[in-house]
Amino acid sequence: MRAYRMTGWGEAPRATTVPDPEPGPGEILVRVAGCGLCRSDLTMQRMPQAAGERLGWRMPFTLGHETAGRVAALGAGVTGLAEGAPVALAASASCGTCWHCVRGLDNGCPHALTGRGYGRDGGLADFVVVTGRRGVLPLGGLDPRHAGPLTDAGATAYHAVRRALPRIVPGGTAVVFGAGGLGAFAVQFLRVLTAARVIAVDPSPDRLAYAAEVGAHEQLSGVDDATGKQLRRLTQGFGADAVLDFVGTDETIAAGVAAVRPGGAYGLIGSAGGRLQKPWYGALPRDGEVFTFQGSSLADAQEVLALARAGLVRNQVAEFGFEDIGEAYGRLASGTLTGRAVVLLS
Amino acid sequence: MRAYRMTGWGEAPRATTVPDPEPGPGEILVRVAGCGLCRSDLTMQRMPQAAGERLGWRMPFTLGHETAGRVAALGAGVTGLAEGAPVALAASASCGTCWHCVRGLDNGCPHALTGRGYGRDGGLADFVVVTGRRGVLPLGGLDPRHAGPLTDAGATAYHAVRRALPRIVPGGTAVVFGAGGLGAFAVQFLRVLTAARVIAVDPSPDRLAYAAEVGAHEQLSGVDDATGKQLRRLTQGFGADAVLDFVGTDETIAAGVAAVRPGGAYGLIGSAGGRLQKPWYGALPRDGEVFTFQGSSLADAQEVLALARAGLVRNQVAEFGFEDIGEAYGRLASGTLTGRAVVLLS
Amino acid sequence: MRAYRMTGWGEAPRATTVPDPEPGPGEILVRVAGCGLCRSDLTMQRMPQAAGERLGWRMPFTLGHETAGRVAALGAGVTGLAEGAPVALAASASCGTCWHCVRGLDNGCPHALTGRGYGRDGGLADFVVVTGRRGVLPLGGLDPRHAGPLTDAGATAYHAVRRALPRIVPGGTAVVFGAGGLGAFAVQFLRVLTAARVIAVDPSPDRLAYAAEVGAHEQLSGVDDATGKQLRRLTQGFGADAVLDFVGTDETIAAGVAAVRPGGAYGLIGSAGGRLQKPWYGALPRDGEVFTFQGSSLADAQEVLALARAGLVRNQVAEFGFEDIGEAYGRLASGTLTGRAVVLLS
Amino acid sequence: MRAYRMTGWGEAPRATTVPDPEPGPGEILVRVAGCGLCRSDLTMQRMPQAAGERLGWRMPFTLGHETAGRVAALGAGVTGLAEGAPVALAASASCGTCWHCVRGLDNGCPHALTGRGYGRDGGLADFVVVTGRRGVLPLGGLDPRHAGPLTDAGATAYHAVRRALPRIVPGGTAVVFGAGGLGAFAVQFLRVLTAARVIAVDPSPDRLAYAAEVGAHEQLSGVDDATGKQLRRLTQGFGADAVLDFVGTDETIAAGVAAVRPGGAYGLIGSAGGRLQKPWYGALPRDGEVFTFQGSSLADAQEVLALARAGLVRNQVAEFGFEDIGEAYGRLASGTLTGRAVVLLS
Repeated sequence: MRAYRMTGWGEAPRATTVPDPEPGPGEILVRVAGCGLCRSDLTMQRMPQAAGERLGWRMPFTLGHETAGRVAALGAGVTGLAEGAPVALAASASCGTCWHCVRGLDNGCPHALTGRGYGRDGGLADFVVVTGRRGVLPLGGLDPRHAGPLTDAGATAYHAVRRALPRIVPGGTAVVFGAGGLGAFAVQFLRVLTAARVIAVDPSPDRLAYAAEVGAHEQLSGVDDATGKQLRRLTQGFGADAVLDFVGTDETIAAGVAAVRPGGAYGLIGSAGGRLQKPWYGALPRDGEVFTFQGSSLADAQEVLALARAGLVRNQVAEFGFEDIGEAYGRLASGTLTGRAVVLLS
Repeated sequence: MRAYRMTGWGEAPRATTVPDPEPGPGEILVRVAGCGLCRSDLTMQRMPQAAGERLGWRMPFTLGHETAGRVAALGAGVTGLAEGAPVALAASASCGTCWHCVRGLDNGCPHALTGRGYGRDGGLADFVVVTGRRGVLPLGGLDPRHAGPLTDAGATAYHAVRRALPRIVPGGTAVVFGAGGLGAFAVQFLRVLTAARVIAVDPSPDRLAYAAEVGAHEQLSGVDDATGKQLRRLTQGFGADAVLDFVGTDETIAAGVAAVRPGGAYGLIGSAGGRLQKPWYGALPRDGEVFTFQGSSLADAQEVLALARAGLVRNQVAEFGFEDIGEAYGRLASGTLTGRAVVLLS
Repeated sequence: MRAYRMTGWGEAPRATTVPDPEPGPGEILVRVAGCGLCRSDLTMQRMPQAAGERLGWRMPFTLGHETAGRVAALGAGVTGLAEGAPVALAASASCGTCWHCVRGLDNGCPHALTGRGYGRDGGLADFVVVTGRRGVLPLGGLDPRHAGPLTDAGATAYHAVRRALPRIVPGGTAVVFGAGGLGAFAVQFLRVLTAARVIAVDPSPDRLAYAAEVGAHEQLSGVDDATGKQLRRLTQGFGADAVLDFVGTDETIAAGVAAVRPGGAYGLIGSAGGRLQKPWYGALPRDGEVFTFQGSSLADAQEVLALARAGLVRNQVAEFGFEDIGEAYGRLASGTLTGRAVVLLS
Repeated sequence: MRAYRMTGWGEAPRATTVPDPEPGPGEILVRVAGCGLCRSDLTMQRMPQAAGERLGWRMPFTLGHETAGRVAALGAGVTGLAEGAPVALAASASCGTCWHCVRGLDNGCPHALTGRGYGRDGGLADFVVVTGRRGVLPLGGLDPRHAGPLTDAGATAYHAVRRALPRIVPGGTAVVFGAGGLGAFAVQFLRVLTAARVIAVDPSPDRLAYAAEVGAHEQLSGVDDATGKQLRRLTQGFGADAVLDFVGTDETIAAGVAAVRPGGAYGLIGSAGGRLQKPWYGALPRDGEVFTFQGSSLADAQEVLALARAGLVRNQVAEFGFEDIGEAYGRLASGTLTGRAVVLLS
């Protein structure tokens, strides 16, 4: 079958052919319909071998961690799934049995930094083999060619919103830094799950326009030194209930923590490598909460799919064929895509 | 009456005499029995005028924000308090009517950075006047000469523990950086309210010995570059449920966030001015919580007094007379005190 | 001034004239613009004296606990309010200083069963005197003639929704029994604050039609013996995340607890006097939550007004003059009103 | 091997011999060291066939749902467990993949009413086969002959305490109705995890004496009509933060809900079939929480074992041999046991 793979540490991925996989006992074979491309795919070819091995990654592996398709065959002992059923696949290799997993905190599982498409075979292939039903998410009426990004870009944004939810109350304000793929999902989740005023902040007029389209009440061009103060002004000095930062530079972190009200939340999802250049005591929001994380939990993915089935999330995609993966990654890298790139496999 | 006062911005405080206050309508006159001294008193004489005025402080004011005594007289309209009743006084000037206060988050009230002893007349005097019953905390059988520190040093440590409680579970570990006044309270609250193993970390053998005496299961000399890794080892690589940092240098922050398990909490209470010198994304505890705050809420103070009444908190004090306040501050500054200094007024 | 008053235990209320009140120190005089009528007003004339006195009610008192108007005069020492400012008044006499109040749980204050319009002078008069700013809720642009019901009917429904919120997740279902005044508010709050499917259940086609208009996804005629099973079916056997019961008969309680999923919530707000006729163990929702309450908190009222200011709640009212109060109560009793009756005072 | 089994609906269980089981792929063979007996075992022989089949129970099956032992053999593909390792086995057949399980709410899994020893082969046998590592709980230094009851009687009591924990604060009171096996565990968990005053209520002087021994501050003989009022008095009219009812008659339910403070919790764990004979509205604790459940979650069992390893729970057992199971059940039925009966298998 076709597969787009990382074949060596530090090497560029490439299209290749591998044997069709077969499902063993307890395994499920899924024919991939569509697989989303993610900015993190681009960084994997720069991952040092030592770092990858410390995470437990095995080389080679097929890329693609936003996978959806149809059940193609069931290994011995698998029940409760029909052949042909449309499903999305949670990417994380969380174990299901550790301290974190049995508490529904599978995001914190030691194995959760490995997964389908990052250290294990992912969805940029005709078929994927899944072990057990735990990560298989029924799609109902959703289109498996486009659903993949909901379980990753969508679920990560959702996790951020869910973490901040208890602090966002009617009459309050929620701010999203970075109105790209994840940020635009966050704007939508905030509109659906809160009554807060939602402010999107981004330097790109196009992304701000899309944020407005999907529900942001206000758009602010930024982020720079003035953003924190602007947000204070926009909230009459009260501060925002929550700032979700999908950028993560020194500037966004400084503006974000400055904009949060006492008792509010600042969530860092963007991996740009920033830090706060001020003493924490006095600068972090008084009695508030700062959090960061990677990935999402199975519950997050389930709930995003439920929102999509209810017609409450718009999932903007750009379609590519298997032979165009290189071009798609190029456009992802150069920022010339509108919507999430999905590669159609069947 | 006697009063130990700040009389000008940038000036050292001094003992003086002021007219006896009288309670107006709705006010309560309290004869002070004892008032604790706090390290933050020492920094007030260095507070720039602009900063003080921004906080709403008025000069002059009597120092002392750990006050307890006995009800001496009731202004018109005050009911529900008997003359002679032993009471402690919450210091914060939180308003009781704002968004934060009506939610029990009075710690976040815009007025909460002002209070009895910081910008308003405090307890280093024979009498204090209190507006309304809201900040008057009945002591029951507790000794009003010693109870003051429970409502500030105690309540602040308690607030930190209370914030972290939901993340501390049986089988887990809680770490306290800095086993001084607040840290020693935190050790005790952790022992009373959780089943976690409690590790105290401090460079001082004396403070570690006291921490052990009040319940710390393990003592670690530190904090330095190795502390984060030591704590990881002591938790079998799992990480701590919570680290409460009563120091707050770059070193303790680095060690603290490194020691927290995924989903755990790092609380910064120490005002040493540190920050994290690494990129936040990847360095902050995965899906955990970072928080900081100043002061405490009325509920915190109530609950600490309840713990003390139940005999569950040891409150180590060193007694001084009014004429010895200067000496007491000197010993506080030089770190040669054992226990919290309290000035006996009656 | 005009006032509509309870003048004796067991007697019908009546329109009368009383002296204009004047605000003492710390008090605020409010000219009433509009005051809502509530079904509970009708029961007060049947309240036995012993029961009323046990609650702390004083006779006589002016009826009306859904009051809004404009600040008319400020007593000595009151700041932060401008004359003429439109405000609503929280009715509850919660004290602001007890264990419950300092935790933001003023709904549980021992004094909260007394208030403006139930045991104390309420809003069916030209003027009301308020003690302190704590219960004065700025209206911003909202019309004070109509805002009263938001702070009671609205806030009570909101409290129910807020209690259930943590258990209502995307993909889930929330059910409202009784789509009258409070229920119709609850439907709206559920739509604004959750992504759940909302099902309204009521025997009245008119009320169901209004529920649909304000957002209920489905309408069910009921409640009877079949309702529990119907709801199970409508949720594919999974059960509802929450059932909010604004009726409260044996039938609605039985149907409600049967319809809740494991881990879900059943909230009883309706005072019809029902109980569950089955053994609790095995019949109450497995690992779920059953709650009931009366009234609401200041935070609830603040948040409902914020929702209204944001245009997210429709508040249907029927206007009456002071001279028509008797007729209005008659139509309330006979169920021939559309919307909440408000008496216009100015 | 030896096995003590239910062999038909409505029939008494009996000792018999069955073939030794062998672990298939993904399965784990455990040699049982000790298995606790539970009062619910006694009711199984009266379970109607229809009811059992509705729950998904299969006949015949081996009794015993409080099992611990040592890993005897690993099926193909099982890693992370050493032969000989002491382990306890969670009994519930919760699936690990459903909505409830992936949220850590496995207690609410549709399959959780079936398990090892109730509808599936349990631990009253020389060997047990377990599917997957999810329900295998490492014991560390705990004795596998005695650890079984911790995972059921202990974990169920723990679940009740954990549900009530957020409402139990310093200065408050927690009440345990029924100081038998589960209740005595609850007393201990309350003492370890809260600073509340703990009151045990039971008609048996022996059970009250044991409750005192394991930490109950006060003992009350009851429960009868006067208990609710006695508890009100013992809490100065404030009410208890939580009442955990391990009895569950009409009397205990009435006394329990009457004793809870506004905002407190009443938890029903006892299956005696009671209900509240009063209208719920007005009788249930104002703004409090009523909950009930069966069984416990994997996290509960993990945390109870952690408490036991830390020496914080006393687990009183009475040892029996395999040939004495009949006698042990007889003494369990007649209430003449001190401590939990455990059958030693190896």
